[in-house]
Amino acid sequence: MGSTYGKIFKIATFGESHGVGIGVVIEGCPAGVGFDTDFIQSELTRRKPGQSRITTQRREADEFEVLSGVFEGKTTGTPIAMIIRNEDQRSKDYSHIAAQYRPSHADYTYQEKYGVRDYRGGGRSSARETAARVAAGALAKLLLADLGVRVQAYVSQVGKLKLSKEYAQLDLSLTETNAVRCPEPEMAGQMFDYIDEVRKKGDSVGGVVNCVIQGAPVGWGEPVFDKLHAELGKAMLSINAVKGFEYGSGFAGVEMLGSEHNDAFFIDGNEKVHTRTNHSGGIQGGISNGEDIYFKVAFKPVATIMQDQESIDQHGNIAIVQGKGRHDPCVVPRAVPIVEAMAALVLADFYLRNKTSKLA
Amino acid sequence: MGSTYGKIFKIATFGESHGVGIGVVIEGCPAGVGFDTDFIQSELTRRKPGQSRITTQRREADEFEVLSGVFEGKTTGTPIAMIIRNEDQRSKDYSHIAAQYRPSHADYTYQEKYGVRDYRGGGRSSARETAARVAAGALAKLLLADLGVRVQAYVSQVGKLKLSKEYAQLDLSLTETNAVRCPEPEMAGQMFDYIDEVRKKGDSVGGVVNCVIQGAPVGWGEPVFDKLHAELGKAMLSINAVKGFEYGSGFAGVEMLGSEHNDAFFIDGNEKVHTRTNHSGGIQGGISNGEDIYFKVAFKPVATIMQDQESIDQHGNIAIVQGKGRHDPCVVPRAVPIVEAMAALVLADFYLRNKTSKLA
Amino acid sequence: MGSTYGKIFKIATFGESHGVGIGVVIEGCPAGVGFDTDFIQSELTRRKPGQSRITTQRREADEFEVLSGVFEGKTTGTPIAMIIRNEDQRSKDYSHIAAQYRPSHADYTYQEKYGVRDYRGGGRSSARETAARVAAGALAKLLLADLGVRVQAYVSQVGKLKLSKEYAQLDLSLTETNAVRCPEPEMAGQMFDYIDEVRKKGDSVGGVVNCVIQGAPVGWGEPVFDKLHAELGKAMLSINAVKGFEYGSGFAGVEMLGSEHNDAFFIDGNEKVHTRTNHSGGIQGGISNGEDIYFKVAFKPVATIMQDQESIDQHGNIAIVQGKGRHDPCVVPRAVPIVEAMAALVLADFYLRNKTSKLA
Amino acid sequence: MGSTYGKIFKIATFGESHGVGIGVVIEGCPAGVGFDTDFIQSELTRRKPGQSRITTQRREADEFEVLSGVFEGKTTGTPIAMIIRNEDQRSKDYSHIAAQYRPSHADYTYQEKYGVRDYRGGGRSSARETAARVAAGALAKLLLADLGVRVQAYVSQVGKLKLSKEYAQLDLSLTETNAVRCPEPEMAGQMFDYIDEVRKKGDSVGGVVNCVIQGAPVGWGEPVFDKLHAELGKAMLSINAVKGFEYGSGFAGVEMLGSEHNDAFFIDGNEKVHTRTNHSGGIQGGISNGEDIYFKVAFKPVATIMQDQESIDQHGNIAIVQGKGRHDPCVVPRAVPIVEAMAALVLADFYLRNKTSKLA
Repeated sequence: MGSTYGKIFKIATFGESHGVGIGVVIEGCPAGVGFDTDFIQSELTRRKPGQSRITTQRREADEFEVLSGVFEGKTTGTPIAMIIRNEDQRSKDYSHIAAQYRPSHADYTYQEKYGVRDYRGGGRSSARETAARVAAGALAKLLLADLGVRVQAYVSQVGKLKLSKEYAQLDLSLTETNAVRCPEPEMAGQMFDYIDEVRKKGDSVGGVVNCVIQGAPVGWGEPVFDKLHAELGKAMLSINAVKGFEYGSGFAGVEMLGSEHNDAFFIDGNEKVHTRTNHSGGIQGGISNGEDIYFKVAFKPVATIMQDQESIDQHGNIAIVQGKGRHDPCVVPRAVPIVEAMAALVLADFYLRNKTSKLA
Repeated sequence: MGSTYGKIFKIATFGESHGVGIGVVIEGCPAGVGFDTDFIQSELTRRKPGQSRITTQRREADEFEVLSGVFEGKTTGTPIAMIIRNEDQRSKDYSHIAAQYRPSHADYTYQEKYGVRDYRGGGRSSARETAARVAAGALAKLLLADLGVRVQAYVSQVGKLKLSKEYAQLDLSLTETNAVRCPEPEMAGQMFDYIDEVRKKGDSVGGVVNCVIQGAPVGWGEPVFDKLHAELGKAMLSINAVKGFEYGSGFAGVEMLGSEHNDAFFIDGNEKVHTRTNHSGGIQGGISNGEDIYFKVAFKPVATIMQDQESIDQHGNIAIVQGKGRHDPCVVPRAVPIVEAMAALVLADFYLRNKTSKLA
Repeated sequence: MGSTYGKIFKIATFGESHGVGIGVVIEGCPAGVGFDTDFIQSELTRRKPGQSRITTQRREADEFEVLSGVFEGKTTGTPIAMIIRNEDQRSKDYSHIAAQYRPSHADYTYQEKYGVRDYRGGGRSSARETAARVAAGALAKLLLADLGVRVQAYVSQVGKLKLSKEYAQLDLSLTETNAVRCPEPEMAGQMFDYIDEVRKKGDSVGGVVNCVIQGAPVGWGEPVFDKLHAELGKAMLSINAVKGFEYGSGFAGVEMLGSEHNDAFFIDGNEKVHTRTNHSGGIQGGISNGEDIYFKVAFKPVATIMQDQESIDQHGNIAIVQGKGRHDPCVVPRAVPIVEAMAALVLADFYLRNKTSKLA
Repeated sequence: MGSTYGKIFKIATFGESHGVGIGVVIEGCPAGVGFDTDFIQSELTRRKPGQSRITTQRREADEFEVLSGVFEGKTTGTPIAMIIRNEDQRSKDYSHIAAQYRPSHADYTYQEKYGVRDYRGGGRSSARETAARVAAGALAKLLLADLGVRVQAYVSQVGKLKLSKEYAQLDLSLTETNAVRCPEPEMAGQMFDYIDEVRKKGDSVGGVVNCVIQGAPVGWGEPVFDKLHAELGKAMLSINAVKGFEYGSGFAGVEMLGSEHNDAFFIDGNEKVHTRTNHSGGIQGGISNGEDIYFKVAFKPVATIMQDQESIDQHGNIAIVQGKGRHDPCVVPRAVPIVEAMAALVLADFYLRNKTSKLA
């Protein structure tokens, strides 16, 4: 269990890092969404490995094939299956860890849970699985674009290097102009150099991805357990290497007083309801209020490093896990489209769920 | 939608702040769990209002009635329904906001989403709803106790007042010895005084609740979307006023290198697998690894304050929302049992889900 | 598990025959449905015991209490909880079967499945549970009535006594004019006498309930697994004592040729699409086509009889189960509102699901 | 929606009759099931078109490819994806019905529901979709075989030709010895000739498939809504062309008295609980009781016939639907493995669900 997501706009993903390929079946996508193959491919390309020297050198075209659910360029309301075949597996690279548990990977927990595991590249626990999320998320983005909703993420921190400005003060159109996906070019340069330095040492470092959603109407999200931010949080925390999530004022809001934190309502010049501040992060009572939705996602340094590490093997013996293979010294540049994809999936689902809130 | 939680150990909650009462139906609880009425009542009492002068003065006994699913002191495998009747509603206290939108409450979003709302005390969006979670969570705790799993939460921060020690350095048995539920008595005293000061000003302040789970076996949590920490995150973010969640190294882990962050495996004197550090927070690949699971939950200052605030009404006119009624100047003391309850519900569900991982 | 039903319009029922009471939580009912308390009560009254000498003599007022989800006479979009307290339990009537397995009851299977059971009146397996379905179904009917959809069931067979006419040839307004709920008065009289005769012998007999749904628009039902008739079938088969389900041409359709069975489309005088025949039973490809939906449900003779029967006890000894207590000699008269309720629940759910089929 | 089935052993199917192919993702299959490729292929071969002159002449090898979830010959607990590519589409055969509604097909309802449809061969509504069910069901059968459970279906009726014996009096090992899949060779011959005669007239005819499940332990199935027979009913009714379902005594049980119908318990020579008769069909209170589970499924004559039929087109004009293409004059021979597959999927799911019934 665990490989399905969503209540109405639902996805079921499958595939292992070094198996035949990975893929996704999307169920519940409404009929009539324009299926823009180029856009979906471009999103996969934003996530694919080998984009620059600060990402893993695994070579994957990450081209996808649609198997169903699309007819004459539009979704038909039936399930949409997409697959991406693995090409550059090099499974033999992993024979040395067939019986070893890599520190802070899922080797040990999968072995104990299932009594068996596909050890090649982490099998199902590999972040390669996120390609399926990006493919499905791209379709969700197309649906949202038809509704005027835009999802944008960017890197705001790498190690201790941190943007001091919030999203509203940044020009997010610059995000895709550099390999780090940080919208401030100078900071992006420093981050790139730092990641490269870490890479050369065979080490890894963490980072933060920020995301902002604009154009969402009032009413998305459900009361109590399925609050919009609760689902966004789950969706983000389900991405490999994520350790934390906060939205709106987040952890910093803890130190504020209610009289400072409350967002006063007013009517703007277009007769629209707005709030003067947005500590709520666009969500009140778990439901979107029409303001920008924004949140931050913390990624740890990835566990794969090019250094030998002490560990144990399946038989309980001490073992040295060798530092070899290919890896991302810092995942956040490639995590940007993944964060966007998961956010889009959450929103598409809530859009559909909200259609049932009122009679007629 | 949104009022149900869990896949196997499932709860459906209902009720409004000023309606007849609130309650929960638990489905999927296995047969044979000892139904300790006193324990469940004691958990409700930990959450109930009016415990000290730093909590809301609403008077509710919060006594529960069991309607089904228990026979001769044990669960029977059929649904367990529990209700808690509201007693001290004072609904007339809310007539002044029948048509007003209180800042940073759910009044506006509910009205827009549903076209109607029970405005009395926030209706369904009130934190009173969490009593149902605590009742269900208490049963989950009883189940977990039979499996040797213990869930403990405590207050680690109120406003800027912050514990410097982590859970392992604290004596958590002291948590319940003070009204703040902070296990360090001196800090608890400072926090109490600070909350009381905020209360006198008719204001509110945020805080942080930490939680630690001990005794969970290896194997709880599911791959990909239903990772243990992703569900814990969703469960916590679904609690009223929560703005952030982090587990293990959390946001601080961002600044670490992989070589520092990785948790080395070793075999202890009892032939058990352990890790030398626990930046993973007891979870690897989304699955518990047998170490302590720990996380932090950030609560904003609650929106209800005893000060007049500018806002609008349902007709789009400017309105002054009056600062009156009863409120908690800081929710974290009462949030401690709620955090524990939600954690217990997540764990009970994953315990049952994990039973199906292997054949036979 | 098993006590929840529906994907969007969802119900969770609870309660045992001789416990505190039974009830239901309805989640996903849209806001704005008029909550007609009298109508809901009248539906419960149609199902309640003690209506005539051919139904069980258990005395239950079956009055319900609403606990949540209704404000100023309308549903609010939040969960609606209703409970019906048990009054005439006479649990001591069941002490003689505490350790015995009654033939063709659920005593043995519950005991084996759960290791424990509430033996009083069959506990959760009692048909008393269906009161909760009727309460929820009544609300679904109110929703459907707003959409112009009418659900009507009636008794078409008791033992070998069988109506020869189909629904279109009958005056269904006569259904409620007699205790059997058969719309043909003369046949109803014969059925009544036959059931009474069976009752005097301490025996029971089976019957068939037919149901017709009029006014459903085109588009309800989902492809593949959640076909409208598949869900109707499941819903009916989930009612106590049901052994079979058929819709449209049913089992008799097996003997027809395709050229006879196919329903030709035509455009009627109002420019509406219709079919000349309706062997499809109003459903094509699992989706309603705008014609009348009709189906039949077979009920076995109930297992409780007033005769001594050979059986075994929990310890594997031979035991004589005594024929005592109260029972329905034939369930179909009281099953009529239950069949309608389950049909209404299925339809309300598909109405809401269908709202998400198309973009915008 | 509608293309997923199951709660724990879950499948998501996809694909259209004349698209790239069809497939399935199985989630929740426990780790450690031997993945017997040959067996799965042999099940697909039992269902594939072109087996004899009484089945459709569409030529499909129906060979499947596994994409994930299997490692070193065993399931790993992660999702198993299988695809079957379409080869003999002849989509141009369908251009004549691009704008026409074939009688008793899903053309009209899909068009109205989705505003668009893949008209080629019925698109998603085609029975070709059942190949995905058979692939998934084959894996479920492998799982069940490890538990000693056997699922066997056979043809008991074609048109008016009907076996007079019940399953216990038949030699089911003869089922696969003839093209009709009727275990009585003489009757099989008559059925074959009759179907062939119908075929020559360009017509179609209905039939009945019986199924028996042996070796299921006590305890499978859930109370109330998810009764074992209710899920079996839904699963069968979801198969294309099915019009009715009955289990145990079925519709005939209606005419029996309770004193005849009740199944008396006794203890056999091996100290095992049994019933002297089995009108219950192996299920009591919705839960398997250890006896044989048996049921019947009614199939209508398929809608595709080789005769011209009057109908309408999408624009509301009268149209003559031409009788051309390829079709099965009677679906029941090929439905046998589909019925078995769906039964196996239901049972595998309940096996896993039952693992959570009791504590520890």
